[in-house]
Amino acid sequence: MTNIYIDAMGGDFAPQATVEGAVMAVKAYGTPVTLVGREADIQKELSKYDVPEGRVRVIHADSVIGFDEEPVYAVRHKTDASLVVALEAMKGDDNAVLVSAGSTGALLTGALFKLGRVKGIKRPALGAPLPRMDGGRVLLIDCGANADCKPLYLSQFATMGSIYTSQIWHVKNPKVALLNIGTEAEKGSMAVKEAYALLSERQDIRFIGNIESKDALRSEADVIVTDGFTGNILLKSIEGTASVLMKTVKNTLLASTKGKLAGALIKNDLSGLKKTFSSDEIGGTPFLGVKGGVIKAHGSSSAYAIKNAIGQAVAYGEANITARIKAALAK
Amino acid sequence: MTNIYIDAMGGDFAPQATVEGAVMAVKAYGTPVTLVGREADIQKELSKYDVPEGRVRVIHADSVIGFDEEPVYAVRHKTDASLVVALEAMKGDDNAVLVSAGSTGALLTGALFKLGRVKGIKRPALGAPLPRMDGGRVLLIDCGANADCKPLYLSQFATMGSIYTSQIWHVKNPKVALLNIGTEAEKGSMAVKEAYALLSERQDIRFIGNIESKDALRSEADVIVTDGFTGNILLKSIEGTASVLMKTVKNTLLASTKGKLAGALIKNDLSGLKKTFSSDEIGGTPFLGVKGGVIKAHGSSSAYAIKNAIGQAVAYGEANITARIKAALAK
Repeated sequence: MTNIYIDAMGGDFAPQATVEGAVMAVKAYGTPVTLVGREADIQKELSKYDVPEGRVRVIHADSVIGFDEEPVYAVRHKTDASLVVALEAMKGDDNAVLVSAGSTGALLTGALFKLGRVKGIKRPALGAPLPRMDGGRVLLIDCGANADCKPLYLSQFATMGSIYTSQIWHVKNPKVALLNIGTEAEKGSMAVKEAYALLSERQDIRFIGNIESKDALRSEADVIVTDGFTGNILLKSIEGTASVLMKTVKNTLLASTKGKLAGALIKNDLSGLKKTFSSDEIGGTPFLGVKGGVIKAHGSSSAYAIKNAIGQAVAYGEANITARIKAALAK
Repeated sequence: MTNIYIDAMGGDFAPQATVEGAVMAVKAYGTPVTLVGREADIQKELSKYDVPEGRVRVIHADSVIGFDEEPVYAVRHKTDASLVVALEAMKGDDNAVLVSAGSTGALLTGALFKLGRVKGIKRPALGAPLPRMDGGRVLLIDCGANADCKPLYLSQFATMGSIYTSQIWHVKNPKVALLNIGTEAEKGSMAVKEAYALLSERQDIRFIGNIESKDALRSEADVIVTDGFTGNILLKSIEGTASVLMKTVKNTLLASTKGKLAGALIKNDLSGLKKTFSSDEIGGTPFLGVKGGVIKAHGSSSAYAIKNAIGQAVAYGEANITARIKAALAK
């Protein structure tokens, strides 16, 4: 049984969205959840819904870590923050999975300090799911947890990404690509060339070679491996370019009568497109390689996004991802 | 007087596009040009146009370096290639500027070997102009020449980018930003943090701090400084995301009768948008920091794109960019 913990106070729309999302998840997946945060606030939100009996537990935590707080300091000193209380509560329970839409830095730091790394893992990493043009998804790992990476870390990211996509997305024998500035083996920085060599030697993963950033959304790769600096640049560049382009299309449509007419005709189709690129739909990013499970939901998560992230957390626990990573590293 | 050299055989549509573009440029800017490549082929193309008397010179070169050839080997051994012959012809002439749509690797390697670095410059760098949502442009430097960069290189890229944008784009006191995974000073990899410290100390440039990739197209920065690996990832990700999105919008429009009608209404507006993101319009990327000038045009350059790149080369020469970089480094 997976024990789901929710940082009820984390995120732009907490605790409204977190509590509503938790109630939606309980109804959708039948899983019990533990909400951690200011009890009075949480109970007030819970009273708005018809909550299934005995499925929602509340653990009180007096404060919350804000997005602007220095992660290491906050995690060490704010012992009554919802995130810290949640991590303490799940400590030692390998079946526990935490969902948080709060500060990414605090979540990663807190998980590292309180839960610790899976034995053998050098650096836990964030895996962001990206939409693929063929309707599939690709996991970009690391997308921001480790700005400085050695080639060995990237090789371990490949292991964790393969396990995650095969178990959670049910991809058979997932294809792993290395993010690079050219497709040839001899391209890239010294570190990336070394990572290429390491990945090429691996028999236990399916390495398909280098991938350029322009093909990130339209390749057949299931996992794209990179350091956290480059991954974050790619992730946010896709987000920024999509946002800028959609805005430009919208402005173009609003600029003329013909455009407004056209816009009215395709409004539904465009919102479908927006949905494809929406982080609400894609769900949270797993922080792979720590003991227990950690799912980071987007800071601006709606209740629907929180519900989806909890769904991911349930799947994460049921698939025993942490145990599988441990077993793979032990080989 | 700037002496413009054109690698007539470089690019997907050479020599047709290069020769036509050169003729267009001669007419538009009144500048004489030297076309380097197979003389018979060039003359055949030239015979199609009404070429102003004495404005087009041809230097024969028997072969061409292909996109798939190993740059260092090709530049060393193919001494009769159009690129190599052009670089030899302009060697020692600080007023010479080369335009090539051929292999980027061969162009950068050739320029380094044959022309050499400006005194004091550790690593010449490619500066890619990106469209900014406010209608302006921002120079991304380095966008691919140097996969491994020390912090000092980035500081020099800031110098070269500031000179280029102030002289060629006429930006007064250009704003320089450092590409990073957060806006705070303490964010990023060790190398980027060091670069931040170096840039903060500079009195001769206008450093405005970190910029995230999601804001690359919508900030007020005139220059974005980064290493060639990260810059290339950002550049190609913008290109890839824009291409994928425009294709998806198109498919959405074609999927229904309503969509087709809407598409017909906004066809012209959408092609305007496409133009904004077109490398044909934005022009070539200068390779800054070598003696003489080098403008890399896109491999799939049309005659119009070549003409624009030559326009850039003319401006480059007239503004004495190379001499200005040398003077700035001497300080």
